Amino acid sequence: MGYSDVDWKAINTVRLLAVDATLKANSGHPGAPMGLAPAAHVLFNKFMTFNPKNPHFVNRDRFVLSNGHGCMLQYALLHLFGYGISMDDLKNFRQVDSITPGHPEAHDTPGIEVTTGPLGQGFSNAVGLAIAQAHTAAVFNKPGYDLINNYTYCIFGDGCAMEGVASEAASLAGHLQLGNLICIYDDNHISIDGDTKCAFTEDVSKRFESYGWHVQHVKDGDHDLEGIEAAIAKAKEVKDKPSMIKLTTTIGFGSKLQGTGGVHGNPLKADDAKQVKAKFGFNPEESFVVPQEVYDLYQKHSAEGAAAEQAWNDRFKKYSNEYKDLAADFSRRLTRKLPEGWEKKLPVYKPTDAAVASRKLSEKVLEEIHSVIPELLSGSADLTGSNNTRWKDAVDFQPPSLGIGDWSGRYLRYGVREHAMAAIMNGISAYGTLIPAGGTFLNFVSYAAGAVRLSSLSHQRVIYIATHDSIGLGEDGPTHQPIETLAHFRALPNMMVWRPADGNETSAAYYVALTSATTPSILALTRQNLPQLENSTIEKAIKGGYVAVEAENANVTLVSTGSEVSLCVEAVKVLKDQYGITARVVSMPCTEVFDAQPKEYQLQVLPDGIPAMSVEVMSTLGWEKYSHEQFGLNRFGASGPYKEVYKKFEFTPEGIAKRANATVDFYKGQKPRSPVNRAFQQLI
Amino acid sequence: MGYSDVDWKAINTVRLLAVDATLKANSGHPGAPMGLAPAAHVLFNKFMTFNPKNPHFVNRDRFVLSNGHGCMLQYALLHLFGYGISMDDLKNFRQVDSITPGHPEAHDTPGIEVTTGPLGQGFSNAVGLAIAQAHTAAVFNKPGYDLINNYTYCIFGDGCAMEGVASEAASLAGHLQLGNLICIYDDNHISIDGDTKCAFTEDVSKRFESYGWHVQHVKDGDHDLEGIEAAIAKAKEVKDKPSMIKLTTTIGFGSKLQGTGGVHGNPLKADDAKQVKAKFGFNPEESFVVPQEVYDLYQKHSAEGAAAEQAWNDRFKKYSNEYKDLAADFSRRLTRKLPEGWEKKLPVYKPTDAAVASRKLSEKVLEEIHSVIPELLSGSADLTGSNNTRWKDAVDFQPPSLGIGDWSGRYLRYGVREHAMAAIMNGISAYGTLIPAGGTFLNFVSYAAGAVRLSSLSHQRVIYIATHDSIGLGEDGPTHQPIETLAHFRALPNMMVWRPADGNETSAAYYVALTSATTPSILALTRQNLPQLENSTIEKAIKGGYVAVEAENANVTLVSTGSEVSLCVEAVKVLKDQYGITARVVSMPCTEVFDAQPKEYQLQVLPDGIPAMSVEVMSTLGWEKYSHEQFGLNRFGASGPYKEVYKKFEFTPEGIAKRANATVDFYKGQKPRSPVNRAFQQLI
Repeated sequence: MGYSDVDWKAINTVRLLAVDATLKANSGHPGAPMGLAPAAHVLFNKFMTFNPKNPHFVNRDRFVLSNGHGCMLQYALLHLFGYGISMDDLKNFRQVDSITPGHPEAHDTPGIEVTTGPLGQGFSNAVGLAIAQAHTAAVFNKPGYDLINNYTYCIFGDGCAMEGVASEAASLAGHLQLGNLICIYDDNHISIDGDTKCAFTEDVSKRFESYGWHVQHVKDGDHDLEGIEAAIAKAKEVKDKPSMIKLTTTIGFGSKLQGTGGVHGNPLKADDAKQVKAKFGFNPEESFVVPQEVYDLYQKHSAEGAAAEQAWNDRFKKYSNEYKDLAADFSRRLTRKLPEGWEKKLPVYKPTDAAVASRKLSEKVLEEIHSVIPELLSGSADLTGSNNTRWKDAVDFQPPSLGIGDWSGRYLRYGVREHAMAAIMNGISAYGTLIPAGGTFLNFVSYAAGAVRLSSLSHQRVIYIATHDSIGLGEDGPTHQPIETLAHFRALPNMMVWRPADGNETSAAYYVALTSATTPSILALTRQNLPQLENSTIEKAIKGGYVAVEAENANVTLVSTGSEVSLCVEAVKVLKDQYGITARVVSMPCTEVFDAQPKEYQLQVLPDGIPAMSVEVMSTLGWEKYSHEQFGLNRFGASGPYKEVYKKFEFTPEGIAKRANATVDFYKGQKPRSPVNRAFQQLI
Repeated sequence: MGYSDVDWKAINTVRLLAVDATLKANSGHPGAPMGLAPAAHVLFNKFMTFNPKNPHFVNRDRFVLSNGHGCMLQYALLHLFGYGISMDDLKNFRQVDSITPGHPEAHDTPGIEVTTGPLGQGFSNAVGLAIAQAHTAAVFNKPGYDLINNYTYCIFGDGCAMEGVASEAASLAGHLQLGNLICIYDDNHISIDGDTKCAFTEDVSKRFESYGWHVQHVKDGDHDLEGIEAAIAKAKEVKDKPSMIKLTTTIGFGSKLQGTGGVHGNPLKADDAKQVKAKFGFNPEESFVVPQEVYDLYQKHSAEGAAAEQAWNDRFKKYSNEYKDLAADFSRRLTRKLPEGWEKKLPVYKPTDAAVASRKLSEKVLEEIHSVIPELLSGSADLTGSNNTRWKDAVDFQPPSLGIGDWSGRYLRYGVREHAMAAIMNGISAYGTLIPAGGTFLNFVSYAAGAVRLSSLSHQRVIYIATHDSIGLGEDGPTHQPIETLAHFRALPNMMVWRPADGNETSAAYYVALTSATTPSILALTRQNLPQLENSTIEKAIKGGYVAVEAENANVTLVSTGSEVSLCVEAVKVLKDQYGITARVVSMPCTEVFDAQPKEYQLQVLPDGIPAMSVEVMSTLGWEKYSHEQFGLNRFGASGPYKEVYKKFEFTPEGIAKRANATVDFYKGQKPRSPVNRAFQQLI
């Protein structure tokens, strides 16, 4: 307690940096920073432990600004505390190639934990950060060594509170009793459409109570620094529930338009900016001003953070002597490198091995590798038995009081909450000590699209175990059968979409997914059994595409994925016997990885001179890139036993052969160029 | 009140039909139907008005089974009440080409209002049905003519309760005070992962109270028919709040595995089925048995429904005399045909007209047509001022008590709830008297992907007004700039993705969207201004693709959409001046509509013999179908003023010309086949 003029000067400095940066950019959101500066000041300066000189200090308190449009709040604070954000960076707010983009991006800006802006995501990421903290503490803390004890703090606004993904995450956080999570709800009654009265009149506090959260209300978030401090202190004491502090604030505090939508998403008018500066005791003619005592105040706190890290490092050194293996494991995890030799555990298959569904092949991988990759945390959105995501002796990640698991558990039951699962996994990955993998049906990864996109954009190593990957799921029918899903995620930059055709390809998918530290993966896996291919190996499959059946003087190449590869192999015989056509087969489990191979290799796989036809039982969109003709399913599927459904749509060796024959006919007398030959390179 | 043996016989008949159908299919979910049969019996037989002989009777009560996997409950009831579902249809449950697919599909099965199964959707559709009812009643009811007074009933399960989309919809329904909506929560404590204790321990009743719902609890949903009846009756009396009835049931009631996950998603074992039949007084050796008195009981109720429709028809005839225009409008709407001559209101532009952002062009369309298309109901997910979705004199759809609109209002403020907006629009469309249009940023249509997919699958005329459609949104940056979004939705069957390049194309997009009664549309619209093209007309643009700049003996065709078309037109000059290359330009605002044109036309647009290069400032995925080479953006965008961002990625006339030149070089001496020439037809 005890706030002085310098505190208010600091608060107003933050407010005015937001005013100046948005004014200079002629773009951005001054309102939230101006309303939230008091709470952020108390939170950062009184409660949070961090070292701006090392933003990666592992036991730092995490902060997430879920209403990411208010990012000038965060950029200003990061600058003032001494992170690697200069005054020039603030002046370059929202400019091309700056580190201060329009919404916070984790991988570009020091001190930004997760990428926010799309509403509801940051809040859900915070739940993931808190889960990762609880788990990491349970695994590594030892008597006398409270190695990991950070809190996760989050500020979220009305928009986040309205988004379903945040509702899902809040419900799960309540269930999990995450006492290490403290979220401040910026109750400013304004969203883009104006007063929240027009669409949002629910009792948010009561809702969070219904989820099992501890809820408080600070009624005057504009002035009551003591009240804010007391509420956060109280929240920290509540160890068995996440905390929500409803903070009533005035958006755009100080502006002539304060409390209205006018300050939400537009810079202040020049004269308004001047009057705010005057009101706060600043020179109205100056911009981007930071009084020295404000730097001093904040950097004193930063120095304490640096000292805290030093103390932690000393503690960790002692810990390393006492718990050598644990300490080595911990340190290794932070490098994001897997344990030496882990890949020897990956299952390898011979062609004579039994046919197995790739969801079961995936289970087998998890069964084998979970003991050598302790940072792997699996889970499912209530489809554990269908996704096969749980190894036999897994312990559930649960609050011990429920008696069905504990914090060290490595299996997370996300409930029927696909979107929150994805956003939470982004948070878990961002924490730095875990690799999350989560299951749902491929079709329902679409529910999570908002968060999946952020896995890619923010470079998180998240693995989506997406089973029931086609009409091959059978009876559940068109509502559950993906058609557009793979095209969707193949079009998403920095995402690997894998659709393995057999056991070795499934192992390869895991190999690449786990060793790609900055790229998420979707593994599309079958419900139905798949035979082991003659020529598949992990080594071949990790190239993304390879020749599964070679033939000299072939008339056509069949390019296929997953469950259709073995149908293509059968079609080769039909083509030879019934049409006198020689076909070769390419298995292409991951186009993104194939794209990264040297062109010479690509041309071996998809050579010049013969036509290629793609075969995949879903939208053909995008397959023109790897083939001249496409056999797919550009309509919805059907409910029925899967073999019947495949037959209905002619996905049989005969149906494939018929179209391959038409392809050969169509290109007769021509030597078509390989589809990998292009006129120019794409920007990447 | 007053239930007899025949009621229980009916209830048990429903249960056993679910047992038999899932057993015969060897697939499906018997548990929910067995647990819910008592409540469904009371609801259908005591409360709901419907006429199985005319499932489209407009004032029927609507029923939605949001936990669609329990659809054998609904199929059994529809059969017993005399809808067009035969006993053979029940025996064909989950078989190819049956009308009893694995999850209920609205367009195939009489009596199914909306397509459910993907969890949370049906609940949200029900909110839409209730909104449509409230609005339609407000517009058409007159003193003495309570023309529209139906209720919407919904059953939902734990899975739906966990899904964010349902949370969003529930919050909005509470805000809107939808007293005509009654939802029964099947509180059976079981989801696929087993006991809901493992992931779902929130207080659902309290949550719904926080949304402003009226909440009751029927503790013994297995036996207490009187309690169920009383609760529904009470809910009907509550006119200013939606009602939620928590109904505690035993999943798989009667099975040896009742109350466990074992009866959720798998047929009963044969011996278990037999013991259930014996327990319920049925012959254990017989299957698909319906006692005549059960048919009699239900069909007596159906006859009452038919009489109610007859009475309604008589009432409507009188109403038609008194309110001729209203009655004519009402009748017309039910045909799903627009008023004669409405299209004359569509704005038409000349090349000399000012450059305007297509989001503003869209606003202009709405401004012009809203008065002639009274069934158009616009709205936005809290981006009204950015999406430009509201015509000037629009009235908000709001409960009158809030003082900010009324039930007849045609502008819906969905809040920051994209997914619920889409699902609610599906429900509004399904009601039959309205065409919903809703706005958000294109990037956040992805949040709604689960519901957008169902717009397509269930043939709903829903219009997504998706503004800020590219990196052209500028400063908000990569978190808001779509890259993969158009590829995603172009891969979705029965979806039209429009990206108009100017005013005439925007009018064309609305023309096709509004006149396609069974296909949803996404209109991708710019934030930035676009010049009016020289050769655009509505007539050309409604073909999906047309020649915007023709040239004899052209060396290359540039195929483009939206904001890039005018850049291509400028690139034509650069190509001529700097490279001596003759280029033509094709504008392709909607590939799906272009695909439906006669091949002869397609070949005029994309002729044989010259290479085509696509130009669209997002993922190139799919453009190979219409071009030989592609210029796009297969990476995330950047935050900055939009012209700077375009420049960074070389989306300038010069950048286009450079790549077009490379394309011409690459194809020198060749006469490439038009991309519309294919070896074989796709299945549709």
